[in-house]
Amino acid sequence: MHSISTETAESAPWQPVVDSVAEELERTAVARDRAGGTALHERRVLRDSGLLGLSVPRAYGGHGASWSDTLAVVRRFAQVDSSLAHLFAFQHLHLATVRLFGRPRQWEPWFEQTIAQRWFWGNALNPLDQGTRAVPDRAGGWYFVGRKSFCSGAADSDRLLASAFDEQGRLLIGVVPTSRKGIGVLDDWDNMGQRQTDSGTVVFDQVAVAGNEVLADPGPLSSPFACLRPLLAQLILAHIYLGLGEGALRTARDFTRASSRAWIASPASHPTEDLYVQGHYGRFWLALEGARVLVGRAASAFDSAWRRETALTETERGKVAIAVAAAKVQSAQAGLDVTQRMFEVTGARATTAALRFDRFWRNLRVHTLHDPIDYKIRELGDWALNERFPDPSFYS
Amino acid sequence: MHSISTETAESAPWQPVVDSVAEELERTAVARDRAGGTALHERRVLRDSGLLGLSVPRAYGGHGASWSDTLAVVRRFAQVDSSLAHLFAFQHLHLATVRLFGRPRQWEPWFEQTIAQRWFWGNALNPLDQGTRAVPDRAGGWYFVGRKSFCSGAADSDRLLASAFDEQGRLLIGVVPTSRKGIGVLDDWDNMGQRQTDSGTVVFDQVAVAGNEVLADPGPLSSPFACLRPLLAQLILAHIYLGLGEGALRTARDFTRASSRAWIASPASHPTEDLYVQGHYGRFWLALEGARVLVGRAASAFDSAWRRETALTETERGKVAIAVAAAKVQSAQAGLDVTQRMFEVTGARATTAALRFDRFWRNLRVHTLHDPIDYKIRELGDWALNERFPDPSFYS
Amino acid sequence: MHSISTETAESAPWQPVVDSVAEELERTAVARDRAGGTALHERRVLRDSGLLGLSVPRAYGGHGASWSDTLAVVRRFAQVDSSLAHLFAFQHLHLATVRLFGRPRQWEPWFEQTIAQRWFWGNALNPLDQGTRAVPDRAGGWYFVGRKSFCSGAADSDRLLASAFDEQGRLLIGVVPTSRKGIGVLDDWDNMGQRQTDSGTVVFDQVAVAGNEVLADPGPLSSPFACLRPLLAQLILAHIYLGLGEGALRTARDFTRASSRAWIASPASHPTEDLYVQGHYGRFWLALEGARVLVGRAASAFDSAWRRETALTETERGKVAIAVAAAKVQSAQAGLDVTQRMFEVTGARATTAALRFDRFWRNLRVHTLHDPIDYKIRELGDWALNERFPDPSFYS
Amino acid sequence: MHSISTETAESAPWQPVVDSVAEELERTAVARDRAGGTALHERRVLRDSGLLGLSVPRAYGGHGASWSDTLAVVRRFAQVDSSLAHLFAFQHLHLATVRLFGRPRQWEPWFEQTIAQRWFWGNALNPLDQGTRAVPDRAGGWYFVGRKSFCSGAADSDRLLASAFDEQGRLLIGVVPTSRKGIGVLDDWDNMGQRQTDSGTVVFDQVAVAGNEVLADPGPLSSPFACLRPLLAQLILAHIYLGLGEGALRTARDFTRASSRAWIASPASHPTEDLYVQGHYGRFWLALEGARVLVGRAASAFDSAWRRETALTETERGKVAIAVAAAKVQSAQAGLDVTQRMFEVTGARATTAALRFDRFWRNLRVHTLHDPIDYKIRELGDWALNERFPDPSFYS
Repeated sequence: MHSISTETAESAPWQPVVDSVAEELERTAVARDRAGGTALHERRVLRDSGLLGLSVPRAYGGHGASWSDTLAVVRRFAQVDSSLAHLFAFQHLHLATVRLFGRPRQWEPWFEQTIAQRWFWGNALNPLDQGTRAVPDRAGGWYFVGRKSFCSGAADSDRLLASAFDEQGRLLIGVVPTSRKGIGVLDDWDNMGQRQTDSGTVVFDQVAVAGNEVLADPGPLSSPFACLRPLLAQLILAHIYLGLGEGALRTARDFTRASSRAWIASPASHPTEDLYVQGHYGRFWLALEGARVLVGRAASAFDSAWRRETALTETERGKVAIAVAAAKVQSAQAGLDVTQRMFEVTGARATTAALRFDRFWRNLRVHTLHDPIDYKIRELGDWALNERFPDPSFYS
Repeated sequence: MHSISTETAESAPWQPVVDSVAEELERTAVARDRAGGTALHERRVLRDSGLLGLSVPRAYGGHGASWSDTLAVVRRFAQVDSSLAHLFAFQHLHLATVRLFGRPRQWEPWFEQTIAQRWFWGNALNPLDQGTRAVPDRAGGWYFVGRKSFCSGAADSDRLLASAFDEQGRLLIGVVPTSRKGIGVLDDWDNMGQRQTDSGTVVFDQVAVAGNEVLADPGPLSSPFACLRPLLAQLILAHIYLGLGEGALRTARDFTRASSRAWIASPASHPTEDLYVQGHYGRFWLALEGARVLVGRAASAFDSAWRRETALTETERGKVAIAVAAAKVQSAQAGLDVTQRMFEVTGARATTAALRFDRFWRNLRVHTLHDPIDYKIRELGDWALNERFPDPSFYS
Repeated sequence: MHSISTETAESAPWQPVVDSVAEELERTAVARDRAGGTALHERRVLRDSGLLGLSVPRAYGGHGASWSDTLAVVRRFAQVDSSLAHLFAFQHLHLATVRLFGRPRQWEPWFEQTIAQRWFWGNALNPLDQGTRAVPDRAGGWYFVGRKSFCSGAADSDRLLASAFDEQGRLLIGVVPTSRKGIGVLDDWDNMGQRQTDSGTVVFDQVAVAGNEVLADPGPLSSPFACLRPLLAQLILAHIYLGLGEGALRTARDFTRASSRAWIASPASHPTEDLYVQGHYGRFWLALEGARVLVGRAASAFDSAWRRETALTETERGKVAIAVAAAKVQSAQAGLDVTQRMFEVTGARATTAALRFDRFWRNLRVHTLHDPIDYKIRELGDWALNERFPDPSFYS
Repeated sequence: MHSISTETAESAPWQPVVDSVAEELERTAVARDRAGGTALHERRVLRDSGLLGLSVPRAYGGHGASWSDTLAVVRRFAQVDSSLAHLFAFQHLHLATVRLFGRPRQWEPWFEQTIAQRWFWGNALNPLDQGTRAVPDRAGGWYFVGRKSFCSGAADSDRLLASAFDEQGRLLIGVVPTSRKGIGVLDDWDNMGQRQTDSGTVVFDQVAVAGNEVLADPGPLSSPFACLRPLLAQLILAHIYLGLGEGALRTARDFTRASSRAWIASPASHPTEDLYVQGHYGRFWLALEGARVLVGRAASAFDSAWRRETALTETERGKVAIAVAAAKVQSAQAGLDVTQRMFEVTGARATTAALRFDRFWRNLRVHTLHDPIDYKIRELGDWALNERFPDPSFYS
C-alpha cells in the first residue's frame, strides 16, 4: 500500500519471483479462504520459488537476505494471503531457531538440505502446551509422547520442530523428519480465520528423537543472542498484521473508488469526495503509516542485533525487544481498526460473500490473539515508567 | 444479558412462547449461520407461535402488544439469532407501514388475515433502489416492472410490500401476494453476515398491482404520524444491534468463566480475576448498559408518539427521532466494540470455527451498514448545535 | 442543556430560588475561578436561599426534597460553578452521613438546627488520611490530634464532620462546631481546578470530641442502609461531572454559533454547517445523553433504596452500587471528552484567558481524580463477568 | 524522553549551549506560566546563546545546522517551555521565509545582521487576517495600515515579518524594523496557554514599507521550493507538540515514581507496579514513540527537499507535505492524550497549583488549534484514497 516513503528494497534480485508468487496467491485467496484446508498447490509454488531459502546465508546455498528483506516478503504476502504468509514466515523462524538454539554441526547440514531438498519446515513447538512428554531412552536420546495443538504448517512439511517437557520440566526442542514413525499430523484445523495455516494437532506416539536431534547446545533462550528467537517471532507477527491492514485498505480503496454514488444525505458528488469518508481514510492511513515506520525501524534494529551474534548484550537485546513490541502493538491496533471499519467506507454492497472482505478481519482477529496485546502494552509501560526491559521468554 | 434493571415486562402472556422460540432458534443458530439460505423450519416455528401477530391490536385478533414489548422480543431473538430477529421485526414493520400509509379499508382486512392465515410479510420496498418502474394500466392500477435488491424476507412470504417509481418519480408502495404472477424471488443472498435474512433480489415481470393495493391514502411519509415508519425501522435496528451485543457478551462471559488459566504473564489465578480482563468486561458492559437505557427510552417515546396518532406534531415526532437516533448510534457502537473485542477476553481457543463466535461481529457489521452511522451522528450534532430535527425521510 | 427528555421536575417549589442562585453563581464564576479562595458571598447566598435544607425532611423544617431532586440542583449549579456545586452537594452528603451513621437523638436536633441556624456543614472526614488520631479522654470522649487534607468546605462552615483513627485502627467520625477550640482551618487550597472548594488542611490540636458527638451507633458502613453513604458521595460526583460537561457543551455551542466563518478549507458557509463540527457535536451530545439517562436512573434507584431504610438488603444495595458506578464512569468519560475537545469546535479565539473556557476541563480533571476511574470500571467488569457486587467501602 | 533509539545528534557542537539554555528555561517555566507576559530575561538568554543563528548557513556566520538539528532543539525546549520554544522556532521560520520568498540581495544581508546584531525576529504575518491594507506610495513602496492579531514574538523583537493585502487582494510580505515609526506592539496577549508567546496585536499606523523590503521576488508560495515555507511551519508545530507530550510524560513518570502508595483497591505494592498504571504508560509511550518516528522521518524528508532548492518538484514537495501532515496529526493526538490523562497516573495530589502540571495540556490545547486537525486528517485521507497531494497554501 502506497506509503509516502516507498524507496524500499524492491530492487532485490528475488523481487520478480516474489511478485509472481504474490500474484499467484492473490488469484485464489478468496476461494481458499472459503475452502480452508492445506494449500498444497501454493506450498509447492513456494517450494519451487526458491524463497524457502531466502534467509539462508549464501554460504549454505540460500539467498542470504537480511531479516528486513525477508520480512518485507512476509508483509507482501500477507497483503494478499496471510495464511501462506504465516507458513512462509515460520519457515524462516524455524531456520533461525535451529541457528540460535543448536550447534553449527546441527544447523549447517540442515541449512544445506533445506536448499538442496526444498525442505518446508513445520511447527510442533508450543512452550505453553504441556501435552507432550520427553522420556529418555537408553542411548542418550528420547521418546516424545503426547499431542500438541496449534502446530502451524506441520501438514505437508519435511521437517518438524517439536517440543516436549522432560521429567524435570525442562523444555526440549527436537528436529525430526515429519515422516518419522509415530508422528501423526491431524487434519483438524478449522478456524474462523487464518484458515490455511494448518494449525492443527500433531500426535506423538513414542516418537524416537536422537540426542543429536535435540537443540541443547547452547539451548533455548540460553543467551541474549538466543533470546532473539522470540523477538523474531513477534516481529513476524507485526509484519503479518501490517500486511493484513494494508491489504484491507487497498481493497477498500479500490471498492470506494468504483462505487457509484455517495450516501443520499451527503453533499458530496461521489464517495471519494465525502468528508467523512476522507476522514476515515486519513485515520486508517495514518495508523498504518505509524505501524510502517515502527515496523521498519524494529526490523532494522533486529538486523543489527542479529549481526552482533553472541556479543549481543542484554541491554542491546532489550532495546530490540521494546522496538519489536511497539511495532507489534501498533500494527495490531491499526490493522484491527482498518479491517473492522473498512466497511464504513465501502457500504452494504461490500458485504456480499463473494468478495469475502471479512477475511481481513477474521485473519487478523485470530492472529492478534497469539499472545495478549494487554500484556504487550504493559511491557511498554514497564519500560516507559520503570525503565525495565521485558523478561525474555517465548513471548517477549 | 443481565442489566441491573431487569424488571422488564417478562411477565407478558406471550413470554413462555417467546422463550420457547428463542431456545429453538439458539439450538441451531450456529449450524444455520454456516448453511445460510432460507430458514424454512424456523419461519414455520414463528408462524406457529402466533408471534407474527404480536403487534396487531386485539381488535383484529392480535396480541395487542406495545412497540416496546414487541421490540423486546426482537432484541431477545437477536441475542441468539439476528437473522430471524430481523425477519420477525420486519413482519411488524410491514404491518405498521400499511397502518401508517394506507386506509383502514386496506389495512384492517390485512391485519385480520395476517392473524387468520398466519401471513408472513416480506420486503420489496427499497426507496433508494431505482430499479423498478410503475407503469399505469387502464384501470387505475399499475404494472410493476424491474428488479429490487436487498428484499429481506421475500422468500417463503405470503405478502410483499413492493415499491416502484412512476414516471413522475413518485414512490408507489403496493401490497401484493408473493405468489402473484410475474413475481420472482431469487435465491441469491449469500453474505458475510445476516445469512438467513434472504435479502436477495425480487424480479417484477409485468406484475399487476391494483389501485386498491397501493398505499396512497394518506400515503408514504404524509404526516408526522406517517413519518413514524422510518423511526420504527431505525428503532428495530437499534434493538437488533443491542441484542447482538448482548448475545456476544453473554457468550464471551461463559467462555471466559469456563477457561482454564490466565495468561502466563498475568498475576491472576484465573482469567476471571485478571485486571485487564475485568477492565474489558467493565467497558463492554457499560457501553451496552448505555445502549439499554437509551434504547428503552426511545421505545417508550415511540409508544407515546404512536398513541398520539394523527395528532402527533412535527416537534413531537422530531423528539422521538432524536431519541431513536441516539439509541441506534449507541447500540451500533457498543455492539461493534463488544463483538470485535470479545476475543480479547476469550483468547485464541475461542476462534475455532465450530463455535462461530465471529458470527456476532459479521452479523452486526453487515447490519450496521443499513445507513451510515456518520450521518446519523451528524443528525445528533445538528440537533445539539442548531436545534434542528432531522428532515423526515426513509432513513431519518 | 437541552436533553430531548426535559420533562424533569422543574416545577418544584424551590425552582425559582434555584434559578436565581444559579444566575448569581454564573455571573461571577469566571472571576472567581481566577481569584480562587473562599466564596464568602456565594456561600451566604446559599445560606440565605434556604437550599441548605433542601434534603432535610419537612418534619425537621426542610424542603423534604428527594435525592433525585436535590441532585438535580447540584447538577444545575455544576453547569455554571462546579466548586459551589460541590460545597452545596457535600452539605447534603454530610446531613445524610449523620442520618445514616448516627442515632436519631443525634441527627434530629442537628437537622433542626441546620434549618434554624442556617448551618453550613464542612468536611474533615477522609478515610484514607491517617494523619489524625483519636485519643480517649477519661469521660468517654476523645481528643482528636493531627491534620487532615482535602477538607472541602471547612472554611466558613458551622459544623464539621471529622474523622480520626483510634489506637485499634478503628475509624471514628465526630460532629463538632468548626469554632471549637483547637481546630484550625488553613487557607492553603490552591489548585488547578475546583478552585473555590476550600479543600485545604484542617489542623486538630487536641480537639475535644464528646462521646455523644461521635457517630458510633449504628456507626459507619454498619448496614446496607448505612452503606448508602458512599453511594451518595459517588452519585454526587456523577451529577457534578455531568453538569460540568453540560456547561461546557452549552458554552461551546453558543461560541460556535456566534463565530464568524468556517475554516478556509471547509466547504461550509458557516461553522454551524461544517460536517466535522456537526460530527463532534453529535458525539459530544450522545455521550452526555448517555450520561443523563444513566445518572437519572441511578438517582431514581438511590431514592428507592433510601426509602427502604434498614430493610435494605445487600443485593438491593449492590444493584444501586452498580447503577451509580455506571453513571459515574459514563459522566466522567463524557465530560472529559467534551471539556477537552470543545476547543476543536470553537477554535483558537476561544482560548483567550478572558473567557476561561479551560475551567471546565480543569474542574472536571481535578474532580474525576477523587478515586480512580480504572478501578470503578473494574467493579463494573467484576459485576458483568462474575456477578459480584462491589465490596462496600468509602469509595464503592 | 527516553526513546529506545536515542542515537540522535546529541554530539552537535551547540549541544552544551542548548542544554544550558534548556535548564535555564526549565528553572522558571512554572513561575512564568503563572505570570504570562514577555519573557525578557529568557529572550536575552536566547540572544546571548547564539542559537538565534542556528539555522543560518555558516557562510553568513551562523551554525549552519540542518532543519532536523534545528528542530531537535525546538523539541528539546518544548519539553520544558513551549512558549519560548515557539518563539525560538519562529525565529528560524522567519529566516526561512525571507530565504524562500525573497531575493539573495535581500536575505543575505539580513542573515548577516541577524548574526552580527543578534536580531530576534517577530511575526506580523497572518494570511487569514484581513485587517491590514497595503497602500502604494509614489516611490514604489507602500504604507501598511491596520492591525493584526496573533503576532507571536513581536514584542521585544528587532525585525518584523508583516503582511498586508493590496487593493487587488494580493498578499504582500514586508520586512521592517520593529522600531519603525507607526508600528505599535500591544501588550494584550492573555491566553489560557502558550502564555509567553506574546501573540498579541500589532497596530500599523501608516507604516512606510520600502519596495526593497517586500518579498516579491520570487514571492510567497511562488514555486514548490517556496512552498516549503508552510511545511516548515507545520513541522515546527509537530516538534512542539511532541516536545510537550514528552515533557508531560517525563513529569508524570517522575511523580508516579515518587508517589507513596497504590490505590486502596489495587493489588500492587506501589503505583509503579499497578497494572492499570503500567497500561496507561504503555499507551502514552507508544503514541509518543509513533510521533517520534513520524516526526523524525518528516524532518529528514524536509531536509532533503530543502537541499533540492528550486529543482524541487511538485511531487517531491507533495510527499514531504504528507510526511509532515502525518507527523503533525500524530504528535497532536498523542500529546493531547498524554497531557489530558497524565493525571490518571499521578492522582489528585498532582493537581496542586504549585506544580502547574495542567500547563502541558493548556499549552498543547491552544497550540493544536493553529489550524484544525480534522482538515489535516482529511488531507491524509485525500492522499490515501485519491492519491492527491494537498494544495499548497499557508496551512498545507
